[in-house]
Amino acid sequence: MTPKTLRDLPTPSLVLDRAKLTRNIARMAAACRRTSVALRPHLKTAKSIDVARLVLGEGTKGIAVSTLREAEYFAGEGVRDIQYAVCITPDKLERVAKIQAMGVKLALITDSVDVANAIAAKQDEIDATFHVQIEVDCGENRTGVLPKSEALKKIARILDAAPNVVFDGVMTHAGHSYGCRSLVEIEELAEVERKSVVDAAEAVRGLGIECPNVSLGSTPTALHARHLDGVTEARAGVYMFGDMFQAQIGSCSVADLAVSVLTDVSSHRPDLNHLTVDAGALALSKDRSTEKVPNDVGFGMIASVNGEPVWPQLNVTRVYQEHGLIPMTPGQSLDSYPIGEKFRIFPNHVCMTAAMYDRYYVVDSETGDGTDIVAIWHRANGW
Amino acid sequence: MTPKTLRDLPTPSLVLDRAKLTRNIARMAAACRRTSVALRPHLKTAKSIDVARLVLGEGTKGIAVSTLREAEYFAGEGVRDIQYAVCITPDKLERVAKIQAMGVKLALITDSVDVANAIAAKQDEIDATFHVQIEVDCGENRTGVLPKSEALKKIARILDAAPNVVFDGVMTHAGHSYGCRSLVEIEELAEVERKSVVDAAEAVRGLGIECPNVSLGSTPTALHARHLDGVTEARAGVYMFGDMFQAQIGSCSVADLAVSVLTDVSSHRPDLNHLTVDAGALALSKDRSTEKVPNDVGFGMIASVNGEPVWPQLNVTRVYQEHGLIPMTPGQSLDSYPIGEKFRIFPNHVCMTAAMYDRYYVVDSETGDGTDIVAIWHRANGW
Repeated sequence: MTPKTLRDLPTPSLVLDRAKLTRNIARMAAACRRTSVALRPHLKTAKSIDVARLVLGEGTKGIAVSTLREAEYFAGEGVRDIQYAVCITPDKLERVAKIQAMGVKLALITDSVDVANAIAAKQDEIDATFHVQIEVDCGENRTGVLPKSEALKKIARILDAAPNVVFDGVMTHAGHSYGCRSLVEIEELAEVERKSVVDAAEAVRGLGIECPNVSLGSTPTALHARHLDGVTEARAGVYMFGDMFQAQIGSCSVADLAVSVLTDVSSHRPDLNHLTVDAGALALSKDRSTEKVPNDVGFGMIASVNGEPVWPQLNVTRVYQEHGLIPMTPGQSLDSYPIGEKFRIFPNHVCMTAAMYDRYYVVDSETGDGTDIVAIWHRANGW
Repeated sequence: MTPKTLRDLPTPSLVLDRAKLTRNIARMAAACRRTSVALRPHLKTAKSIDVARLVLGEGTKGIAVSTLREAEYFAGEGVRDIQYAVCITPDKLERVAKIQAMGVKLALITDSVDVANAIAAKQDEIDATFHVQIEVDCGENRTGVLPKSEALKKIARILDAAPNVVFDGVMTHAGHSYGCRSLVEIEELAEVERKSVVDAAEAVRGLGIECPNVSLGSTPTALHARHLDGVTEARAGVYMFGDMFQAQIGSCSVADLAVSVLTDVSSHRPDLNHLTVDAGALALSKDRSTEKVPNDVGFGMIASVNGEPVWPQLNVTRVYQEHGLIPMTPGQSLDSYPIGEKFRIFPNHVCMTAAMYDRYYVVDSETGDGTDIVAIWHRANGW
């Protein structure tokens, strides 16, 4: 039987609200129009061609991905411009060449002189031309070279000189924007991000090397940058869905959250005044990123089956592999939540939670009571 | 190209050492012989028929599972005695009936008078006989009824009276054994677990109701119980693989750990004296259960490609979606770990980590240098 509404679904299941997704996509598109940059949507969160089709359009370039599995999947679905936005290692180049042979431009990134040399050294071994960008660190202190560093220039020269490489530009990611706690902080960091990658582009151009792409982005900085002069494209991904962490750092509101986990009440403990649901550590993830933001929502914000929050009255305070534990708070009674009652839990970090599911059950909160299933969309998990 | 050794594999990949798995299986089998109980291996961690085939044999009953997806998968692979060891909800009963129609005895559990009544009420709707056990709480304070409670007796009477139900016994799980920090503590808790479920069985028998199964188990208590008089079967799962958390609470040693994540060094930051690998929050999980045990191993214990620990010299201190960050410690140099170098990372909580992968690449540490791939085994993830 094809499920018709959320009430027919097995639990736990992953639910995606198309109306909210569409609004979130429009909001980022507007932000990129305001700053006059192309949007390169990052599909690391959605991992779905159906989502990609909604987000690709006027003002977008290709997409970004976080795994070669995603690159293969989207290439197979017809996407022709893909940036693999994680540092390449030389042993992945054969797989990259196969993806390119599908008719795709697959841009790679590196921050390493050794890797640049290793790519150049593949010219006799692999019959392919690689498009390579240099990753720049704008202060996240994870990967990347510093914007005006000798390492940047050295890598640019190696890539520019290699016959099997097209030097494709510079890119950065202000992942530390997740640590910002005010709009002003985000705006200021967005400017640091912009200046870092533009400085890097200028340093490369100073060597007489063309720098076609100047790419940056994170959901908070792409939404709130004051301007993006000198930048060619912004990447962002989690904005499509939003999550409780993003809502609390100001990237979206709770009403914008498009993804939730459908779960059933599975047990009552009247003696301990708690219930359990059949969504636990695997179904929700163990992400506790809301622990340090204003409101701790435990392992996700609980809502009714049609998406109305019942947090903070109810809270998943503990997870086991397949159980989530919800204590009653004063004024709440187990009788209000009979076994079999369905909740929707909005995750703390949707990238982690969605990764546990092979599909989205799509609803539309602007249609009926928002619980009818209007589509099933698949995800490309793994590596 | 079929990968021949770990050096040929895409990264990240999940690696399973068959020699260690086999030894871990033998150790639990010996423990169950010592306590004269049948073993019901819990496949919630392995989710693999190939692992099930190694573990099913002399002295074992059927298996336990944590999802109906697992039940369907193992039923399809020919397993005929399955316990679904998570409280059933009434809307799952149609799916249960379909699995039973494959020729399987699928035992269900509940701790609820309402669910017992709901199952009984399905007799006109679903043409199936359900085998139902009562879950007993032995002190974990999660799900279950107390061993001598009125709720236990009431549920037993409802199940015994229902024409479409075979009352199948009582079961408990000392999940709080994971909180024990010494062998004596585990032994004492194992006795509490045993007494709780035996008391419950006697309470049921006192009603004139047969109680065929008296089931308990967790890896620590099943291994270390002094005796299991009155118990018919022990369930355990994580012992097959072990993980850093289990190693630290005494369920196994680090040398027993059978599962690891293969990863590549993907970036060097000489200015910050750290490297990154291509295994991050998705590949390793965000589980930090080793934070509170004697040795904090970050997001997993790092080893060389042939499994020799390089922890505590190296430690994954931070994860991003697809990056793991490893700072150099005094005496360590980035030059020792070139880009493309492979590590194996032994997870904190293997149930969480393995769930991200669709297959195991199987090696055998007693064959050659332990890096040859001897098999590929698939997993049944999701719900």
